[in-house]
Amino acid sequence: MVAFAVTAVLAVTPKGIDLFGACVLGIITACGGGTVRDVILGVPVFWSEDQNYLWVALIASLVAFYGNRLVSRRDVYLLMLYIDGIGVSLFAIQAAHKVLALQFAVPFGPVVLGVITAIGGGLIRDVLAGNTTLLMQKELYAIPVTIGCVLYVLLFGWFPDEGNAIGVGCVLFTFAFRAAAIHWKLTVPAWMESRAKET
Amino acid sequence: MVAFAVTAVLAVTPKGIDLFGACVLGIITACGGGTVRDVILGVPVFWSEDQNYLWVALIASLVAFYGNRLVSRRDVYLLMLYIDGIGVSLFAIQAAHKVLALQFAVPFGPVVLGVITAIGGGLIRDVLAGNTTLLMQKELYAIPVTIGCVLYVLLFGWFPDEGNAIGVGCVLFTFAFRAAAIHWKLTVPAWMESRAKET
Amino acid sequence: MVAFAVTAVLAVTPKGIDLFGACVLGIITACGGGTVRDVILGVPVFWSEDQNYLWVALIASLVAFYGNRLVSRRDVYLLMLYIDGIGVSLFAIQAAHKVLALQFAVPFGPVVLGVITAIGGGLIRDVLAGNTTLLMQKELYAIPVTIGCVLYVLLFGWFPDEGNAIGVGCVLFTFAFRAAAIHWKLTVPAWMESRAKET
Repeated sequence: MVAFAVTAVLAVTPKGIDLFGACVLGIITACGGGTVRDVILGVPVFWSEDQNYLWVALIASLVAFYGNRLVSRRDVYLLMLYIDGIGVSLFAIQAAHKVLALQFAVPFGPVVLGVITAIGGGLIRDVLAGNTTLLMQKELYAIPVTIGCVLYVLLFGWFPDEGNAIGVGCVLFTFAFRAAAIHWKLTVPAWMESRAKET
Repeated sequence: MVAFAVTAVLAVTPKGIDLFGACVLGIITACGGGTVRDVILGVPVFWSEDQNYLWVALIASLVAFYGNRLVSRRDVYLLMLYIDGIGVSLFAIQAAHKVLALQFAVPFGPVVLGVITAIGGGLIRDVLAGNTTLLMQKELYAIPVTIGCVLYVLLFGWFPDEGNAIGVGCVLFTFAFRAAAIHWKLTVPAWMESRAKET
Repeated sequence: MVAFAVTAVLAVTPKGIDLFGACVLGIITACGGGTVRDVILGVPVFWSEDQNYLWVALIASLVAFYGNRLVSRRDVYLLMLYIDGIGVSLFAIQAAHKVLALQFAVPFGPVVLGVITAIGGGLIRDVLAGNTTLLMQKELYAIPVTIGCVLYVLLFGWFPDEGNAIGVGCVLFTFAFRAAAIHWKLTVPAWMESRAKET
């Protein structure tokens, strides 16, 4: 959560945003994905039941905005990327778990909504800020999340009694995948790329 | 549905997208409009009750991505445009029918939600892919859909017993209008265009 | 409402839009924010209960499109900006009031949803039309709205019996703030701006 809002603020400050816009985008990035998930599920949005999410996102945005020089230092930023990776992994698997527990559109629903929860906020931020969305970028961001959610649903279907272990395992797997992508700057392999450009 | 996902994938591949992004955008294009409709209606989203929609969209996206060279051939693409036209017509009138049956905000609701169902997915795709949305283009795409939905609501109001015939008629009308627009490359007539540019 | 649709149409006509697109964007700008609010609240969307909202937005869009030369005159446009300011203030405080009455996620909910109701429609319009959203602009638009909603929630919490007076006061305050921003062309103060550009 914290890292979500922080990386969000950092992603937009180079374009010259004001304090207010930064907070709005920070909150949207942190809470937007989960809000879309809850609306599609038809359950009350999560921040209406525990407003600490909003407070945390707001304070993290404020800190990131004013601590900009600090957090945009290369090493701190890298740390934030990793924390963001943990956040994304946790969000995705948590969401998949919530959707599975509601027996909503298994097996597709938990995967789709897990991915939406994890990357939806970032997509909305990019659209509002006029950035290229991560769907059009080569960075491995959404793919680890999707594979993690698919794994979780599959494993949970096979071993329904091992829910906790599977959850922890999938979070670790997703994070490890994402961390590897950050560390080695992995991009999408060639066989997955569009061949349209050749023609 | 199939054509939706296929044209979606084709619309984004020239910008260089990877397999994952293509599938996400294919699914969003095919299912996004109906999801927004169901959320506004307050009913369970359609793909939570029949996940075949998601499977079809996923498989069509995969095929379109790898069969890119084939489907981007001029004649096959044209065929896809026509199938897309059938899809749009069916989606719109089906949605208008669903909304009418729920007696939701008649007469405006069925038209508004019919249009959203038909073009909403494509709008979300264009926004996420950074393309110009069809609202800003001169192609006749949304206009046939809107006129078809308006016709359906009007005719259904006058002849409530002829629901099936009216539905089929409106789908055919909408498709014929759209097909004519594709065939003769019709654009928006001059009297409907913005006059702001003259000044 | 009227001014919302009118300023929306005016905001997009320079880019060359057709009649249909203008009406769609006019309606979205006028009704989009409230629709998002109602969906998040989980209540029926407001225009399903009173369709006059949609009619008014549609007719205002039509008038703005054809009366383009008139409404784009400097003085009429300025008048529209002020009326838009009144609309935004009313919408925001009304929404905050509705959310407070439902006891939804107080104290954050009324503020967040008040702001979404007031500026959400405009954000969707800008995204669909490919304009820079107001979050990335220096104009004081969202800030008066947010402060007005915060004030309303605070004052209502302290003096729950004075609801009407507080509501009127906050609308006037928000409008006065916005009107001042229009009149003196106020922009975001320097201490609130991103410092990232210096580095």
